[in-house]
Amino acid sequence: MKILQTAQEMQSWSREQQRQAKTIGLVPTMGYLHEGHLSLVRLANEQTDVVVVSLFVNPTQFGPNEDLDAYPRDFERDRLACEAAGVEVLFAPQKRDVYAEDHTVYVTEEVLASGLCGKSRPIHFQGVLTVVAKLFHLVLPDVAVFGEKDAQQIRLIRRMVRDLNFPIRIVGGPIVREADGVAMSSRNTNLSSEARNQATVLSRTLEVVATCVEEEGITSVQELRSRADAVLATASLGELDYLEFVKDESLAPFEEELSGDVLVAIAVYFPGARLIDNRVITVPS
Amino acid sequence: MKILQTAQEMQSWSREQQRQAKTIGLVPTMGYLHEGHLSLVRLANEQTDVVVVSLFVNPTQFGPNEDLDAYPRDFERDRLACEAAGVEVLFAPQKRDVYAEDHTVYVTEEVLASGLCGKSRPIHFQGVLTVVAKLFHLVLPDVAVFGEKDAQQIRLIRRMVRDLNFPIRIVGGPIVREADGVAMSSRNTNLSSEARNQATVLSRTLEVVATCVEEEGITSVQELRSRADAVLATASLGELDYLEFVKDESLAPFEEELSGDVLVAIAVYFPGARLIDNRVITVPS
Repeated sequence: MKILQTAQEMQSWSREQQRQAKTIGLVPTMGYLHEGHLSLVRLANEQTDVVVVSLFVNPTQFGPNEDLDAYPRDFERDRLACEAAGVEVLFAPQKRDVYAEDHTVYVTEEVLASGLCGKSRPIHFQGVLTVVAKLFHLVLPDVAVFGEKDAQQIRLIRRMVRDLNFPIRIVGGPIVREADGVAMSSRNTNLSSEARNQATVLSRTLEVVATCVEEEGITSVQELRSRADAVLATASLGELDYLEFVKDESLAPFEEELSGDVLVAIAVYFPGARLIDNRVITVPS
Repeated sequence: MKILQTAQEMQSWSREQQRQAKTIGLVPTMGYLHEGHLSLVRLANEQTDVVVVSLFVNPTQFGPNEDLDAYPRDFERDRLACEAAGVEVLFAPQKRDVYAEDHTVYVTEEVLASGLCGKSRPIHFQGVLTVVAKLFHLVLPDVAVFGEKDAQQIRLIRRMVRDLNFPIRIVGGPIVREADGVAMSSRNTNLSSEARNQATVLSRTLEVVATCVEEEGITSVQELRSRADAVLATASLGELDYLEFVKDESLAPFEEELSGDVLVAIAVYFPGARLIDNRVITVPS
């Protein structure tokens, strides 16, 4: 496995793969890899000739009071995990290799990005889209794989690919969960053991909502919120950021009655980490 | 020469050239081609195997009170000019092939874009950068050629290429002028003959400023403005939008004394068309 650190090395390598008519898969990560990331690497490996994992904790997607400094890092462990997973290139640039000091260009979206996580993280998705656009130009992938756990992110990236005509296919990888149902996240490591125990509240809430819709036929947003509140009350350390019911693709909120494909998305602040989870539910017609 | 009209046809053609290891040159235009455009085609032809000219009057770079509808169009003439110039593909999409009805993603820059033309055309450069990013992804050029007449535009595009790591080299083509010194522009056709006569005021102003700096050693912005005013007063139909002295690359304005490489940029409203021109002057040290 090659480890590349500069933008120039990365782009040259990718141009060479193109000349050899090899298809390239990209799995962008912020490191501290877990089984969720590795499932994305396997997806990429199935669909392309060579796979690049990028490892970059992107500063432009963190707000001033967010956990950029506390974001967990362990390069050696990540390197071994990528090697074992059959990754061809681990692209691990420094900040100065990614952003010029006087960089001023951004990719922005203000519709899909305005709700859900965008409300409490106003500059987050501009940072995500910008760094992903940069990675797309450096790695020149045919396929890029993103986790469905970041539901709003993958929908924004699909939108960016469509609206800016990137010649890239986006593949979503299903959420990978711990034994107790908690969605895998590098941030889980920053939770106290008590908070980690209570972190099941996200998946439990989604499960209750799904059961209400799919088995009891409840479609009233108000009723679903009240069922969810009962579950949320069981996590004393958690503070709800949002629980939203939105249209799967446009992310437009349902105000009263659910219909069609519904993305149910939840974010909860715990001491040490803000956690997110989601589930797509189809309302029986 | 092929004429391609859809995004998909264009991208497939370019992918095929890449597979054949041919280098692609792109000359983006809004049509109504003149000798200025054709000089860019020649530059592209010198540097790449195959040249694509795009012809698209991009609505997102026109403000609500600007001349989108009045922008001159003559597809048949443009087709013949491209054919004669040895263009391989004329990419002439319809609006619906370029922008989805619910498109929401833009490329933005708010530093270089804030002065000069950005002041009177606040959404212009967001529209330019967005459509150029789209064209880059559709045509996949190795080299893209832009006219130096649009001085702020080419500097913004170079910045976008740097900041988003596009694998593309940007080449600038020198301003091509009519016999009387007026910079060629598709918009010149919208001037009355009296306004067309007075349009020499832009290049005459730049010429006077250059002479003042290079031969008389004047570097005071105030003094240069007063020399320029005397020339501007000769064009009764023109209304000055701006005459600015800025650093060549950062576009930061000189407030008092010029030094180093100075971009002198001018924009004048005439009935029927707003005209621009510019000149880079190096202050003798």
